[in-house]
Amino acid sequence: MSMFDKIRDPGFGEKYNSKTKRLINTDGSFNVTRVGEKYHVRDVFQWLINLSWLYFGMLLVLFYISINLIFALLYYVLSPNGLEGIESSISFFTNAFFFSLQTFSTVGYGKMHPIGMMSNAIAAVESLVGLVFYAIVTGVLYSRFSRPKARVAFSKNAIIAPYKEGESLQFRLVNQRSTQLMDIHAKAILMLVDQQHHRQYYRLDLEPSSIQFFPLSWTVVHPITEGSPFYNKAPSFYKDTEGEILIFIRGFDETFSQEVHTRTSYLLKDIVCHAKFSPMFETDHDGEILLHLNKINHYHSANK
Amino acid sequence: MSMFDKIRDPGFGEKYNSKTKRLINTDGSFNVTRVGEKYHVRDVFQWLINLSWLYFGMLLVLFYISINLIFALLYYVLSPNGLEGIESSISFFTNAFFFSLQTFSTVGYGKMHPIGMMSNAIAAVESLVGLVFYAIVTGVLYSRFSRPKARVAFSKNAIIAPYKEGESLQFRLVNQRSTQLMDIHAKAILMLVDQQHHRQYYRLDLEPSSIQFFPLSWTVVHPITEGSPFYNKAPSFYKDTEGEILIFIRGFDETFSQEVHTRTSYLLKDIVCHAKFSPMFETDHDGEILLHLNKINHYHSANK
Amino acid sequence: MSMFDKIRDPGFGEKYNSKTKRLINTDGSFNVTRVGEKYHVRDVFQWLINLSWLYFGMLLVLFYISINLIFALLYYVLSPNGLEGIESSISFFTNAFFFSLQTFSTVGYGKMHPIGMMSNAIAAVESLVGLVFYAIVTGVLYSRFSRPKARVAFSKNAIIAPYKEGESLQFRLVNQRSTQLMDIHAKAILMLVDQQHHRQYYRLDLEPSSIQFFPLSWTVVHPITEGSPFYNKAPSFYKDTEGEILIFIRGFDETFSQEVHTRTSYLLKDIVCHAKFSPMFETDHDGEILLHLNKINHYHSANK
Amino acid sequence: MSMFDKIRDPGFGEKYNSKTKRLINTDGSFNVTRVGEKYHVRDVFQWLINLSWLYFGMLLVLFYISINLIFALLYYVLSPNGLEGIESSISFFTNAFFFSLQTFSTVGYGKMHPIGMMSNAIAAVESLVGLVFYAIVTGVLYSRFSRPKARVAFSKNAIIAPYKEGESLQFRLVNQRSTQLMDIHAKAILMLVDQQHHRQYYRLDLEPSSIQFFPLSWTVVHPITEGSPFYNKAPSFYKDTEGEILIFIRGFDETFSQEVHTRTSYLLKDIVCHAKFSPMFETDHDGEILLHLNKINHYHSANK
Repeated sequence: MSMFDKIRDPGFGEKYNSKTKRLINTDGSFNVTRVGEKYHVRDVFQWLINLSWLYFGMLLVLFYISINLIFALLYYVLSPNGLEGIESSISFFTNAFFFSLQTFSTVGYGKMHPIGMMSNAIAAVESLVGLVFYAIVTGVLYSRFSRPKARVAFSKNAIIAPYKEGESLQFRLVNQRSTQLMDIHAKAILMLVDQQHHRQYYRLDLEPSSIQFFPLSWTVVHPITEGSPFYNKAPSFYKDTEGEILIFIRGFDETFSQEVHTRTSYLLKDIVCHAKFSPMFETDHDGEILLHLNKINHYHSANK
Repeated sequence: MSMFDKIRDPGFGEKYNSKTKRLINTDGSFNVTRVGEKYHVRDVFQWLINLSWLYFGMLLVLFYISINLIFALLYYVLSPNGLEGIESSISFFTNAFFFSLQTFSTVGYGKMHPIGMMSNAIAAVESLVGLVFYAIVTGVLYSRFSRPKARVAFSKNAIIAPYKEGESLQFRLVNQRSTQLMDIHAKAILMLVDQQHHRQYYRLDLEPSSIQFFPLSWTVVHPITEGSPFYNKAPSFYKDTEGEILIFIRGFDETFSQEVHTRTSYLLKDIVCHAKFSPMFETDHDGEILLHLNKINHYHSANK
Repeated sequence: MSMFDKIRDPGFGEKYNSKTKRLINTDGSFNVTRVGEKYHVRDVFQWLINLSWLYFGMLLVLFYISINLIFALLYYVLSPNGLEGIESSISFFTNAFFFSLQTFSTVGYGKMHPIGMMSNAIAAVESLVGLVFYAIVTGVLYSRFSRPKARVAFSKNAIIAPYKEGESLQFRLVNQRSTQLMDIHAKAILMLVDQQHHRQYYRLDLEPSSIQFFPLSWTVVHPITEGSPFYNKAPSFYKDTEGEILIFIRGFDETFSQEVHTRTSYLLKDIVCHAKFSPMFETDHDGEILLHLNKINHYHSANK
Repeated sequence: MSMFDKIRDPGFGEKYNSKTKRLINTDGSFNVTRVGEKYHVRDVFQWLINLSWLYFGMLLVLFYISINLIFALLYYVLSPNGLEGIESSISFFTNAFFFSLQTFSTVGYGKMHPIGMMSNAIAAVESLVGLVFYAIVTGVLYSRFSRPKARVAFSKNAIIAPYKEGESLQFRLVNQRSTQLMDIHAKAILMLVDQQHHRQYYRLDLEPSSIQFFPLSWTVVHPITEGSPFYNKAPSFYKDTEGEILIFIRGFDETFSQEVHTRTSYLLKDIVCHAKFSPMFETDHDGEILLHLNKINHYHSANK
């Protein structure tokens, strides 16, 4: 197979003593566990902007309650006589908790207010902490909303489809967001594992390897010509061979005016032979094109 | 016509069973309806930053009133005795609404203030909601202001103008913003529809295809030489042929230090033959160049 | 002169009926007045982030006072009995102004507080306006601080300096900020005006045209070989010819991880013949390199 | 040595009269002292976002206390009777300090509140200053968190390792952050100092010079073939020669969708001959790859 476009290791290593998991998961993540990592403050921020909205919301509420309980405790322990205007019908700690909430949020009704050095000092600290907390929440929320991120859906399977006089490997993708991606480039690398668990990498030529506009779906085509590692392979080859097709996509996100990247992979055993993708779009009676996003995985037998 | 620079589908598809609308509207949008789209939280943010200022302002006010009405209702229903210092001359609900406004905005005059567990708890929730609201408004406003966005005006028509010994297809563009765009690149693709409603794509060579500086207008020229699909075509060709010239522009926005994209298209039937663009700029008596933005569409007969 | 690297108009136009000002000022701006421009909300934001700090501060204070005067007037006119807790020793309008300040800034001491529908409603509007104002100030301040912007100082003059066996045109530049610029590219275009006030453009080859690192100054060199428009020109040529060398620099700002652009120009008559730039940096006794930023314009006669 | 890939000065200068420090420190900084620098407001911002978290926190607290002491002094000096509701058991200055804190943070309990023109005016100024302070803190914190910044660890030493039939110079790098870097490019330049303290620069060819994916470590290889400046050099050459290998890395940070740069250098005397890097990653029993970040510097003798 050395006649094909064998390429250097694109970053995954070549020699392994034992069987490894797939290189790239369908969601684009890698099966690598990082040992001995040291975390910086910035990594906390990264973690916060990558949390799901549900967990982020829960964390926000939890933190809001906890920090106010802590300050309530400080007033309770350090300045038990430092609050004026408290309600006598509820406990001092509860009063201090509500006072803390009013201070932290800078609402400051003033019915309850600090008297004496200690409670005034704690309140001063608390309002600074509140400020920093608000600044961070503003920054995290903004980041969560505004980072450019390609949300491209790939067909679940790659297929072997008729193409000109021969065949081709095909997969397709569609932009899941209504924002426009432009100038999309695709790269495909075939990884095959040999007998010694070593990995070999081959470039798969694509026709075309880029498109200017991406308002519809894009079916990426690798023609199976003599130069292709898939030339003259029977369907059993795909089922029996340990291998993976690494897909790398980059484009320009018009909303953020920034380049975005995404990736996925197809295992050889998940390739469907003799199939054709079903059309994803059609024209309605007004001449408007309807793009059916949920048809991204639809294919049918090529014999039909 | 196969001798010309026929190119692959740039992303719009080739085979259609029926007549479709133009590919790109003059404002750069596509005539594609997305069916089966699932929305994420981030799409709400996108929607907010793409709303017109009028609608955004109205939505902001509406949301501000609604959220405070909701909290007023919560005080009214859950804690009808939980506010102290209310005005007896107006209804409790109105009092609660004003108290809610004072809490949500963190003004907290304190004349009205919560007493008891329930109203204090609602006020605590409200001030957290207020914080998140303010953080989002800050982020959305900043995004609305600060996203790089090319605002390039194109001439309403493309024209066929004399050029050297022959003719050329021309259109022109001008930067509508006073910020500087640099290093502008243009691409033009001709789309022709054949008898079977199939679309064919041809590259149109431009001279030059890029400019370094863009302080004035730029007249983009496609010389109609033997290699051009427009070679030796009569004016009736443009009127009778279903086709569209897709224009794609990219440049570097100096204010944001980011690449920006824009696009438009010209229908063949909108091309004006034997015309010349009128000058858009002139020199005043100080040697200063005056650029007349509203002359972008001005052309005159080439026979004059 | 047609044997030289004559190039197309880089965006300034070619034909002018009368004398025009220089194309690019030394600060990189263009001498173009835009007529008929329509302003968007975003342009206000651009204007705010490009104001000098002095004017921006003055504007901020002025706006803060004005908006509070307006709200004071609203309380005064629409709700003259709507404030409780005012000081009787000062006028109602002054009281309303201070109340407005306390509301707009969300301090809300509460000594003064609104009573009745009208003043409560005005206060509600004011706190929303305050929020939007704060959000905008946050965004504008952040933009003013955080936009990547090259601050490159160019030598005041370009010089004709000895180079190898012949001569060269040279200018130099230095990064004025302590942030790092990397991968700097330079382009130089000569513009000459002919008898008909028409402009001709020539590329000037640079050696090298880019550098990887930019911790020191960079002397950009155009060797005056046979292919150069300056070949065999006497000093009088520079003094008597109407022409301008357009300089365009781009690099990568490491702090912002973004490409930045800057530009300047040299008039032919400002070129100094037979000169050499004086060194801008030296090594101290520790082996540390001292870069003297204020020597950027220093040159001496080449005969010394 | 002129037969090798001698290149132009990449930006460090060539002629020096005396010995200089290394060009690039291991952390990527340059040994250049800038003399005569003028600072802008933006440079303060840069300084704030580059401070360590510890110093930044201390500065924040210090500034918060100082600005409130200043305003306390203003109330004390200009308006000694301007605060109502103060505690008689503590000094007026302390009262004014706490009042200032309540105003600056916009908490505004209201127990203490200004009366008369002067204290109201000071409070109005203070709340505007507070606003600007909060806006700046929000911006600085956001910048500190959100700027893309490559945190790539390089092996402490470069090594001379066996490679194919001959030898190669190798160093390796690993991404210290859990965010993904893609499309990594490496450049290596050898700087040699000749007898006159002049610097000569040579390009070192790398195999490969880029990788697509970077989930693991990357060992960058310069094969020592006939074209290499290291061809047929004995270990003593590295020990005795004054020289430095400049390393420049760029890649695409997927989290921020921006290009990031980093750099380092190796002194020739720090090169270890006849060594091999120990593997940094292994496969666990699940097929998951374990990447040991703390093994980045591990190498062993090549004779083993």
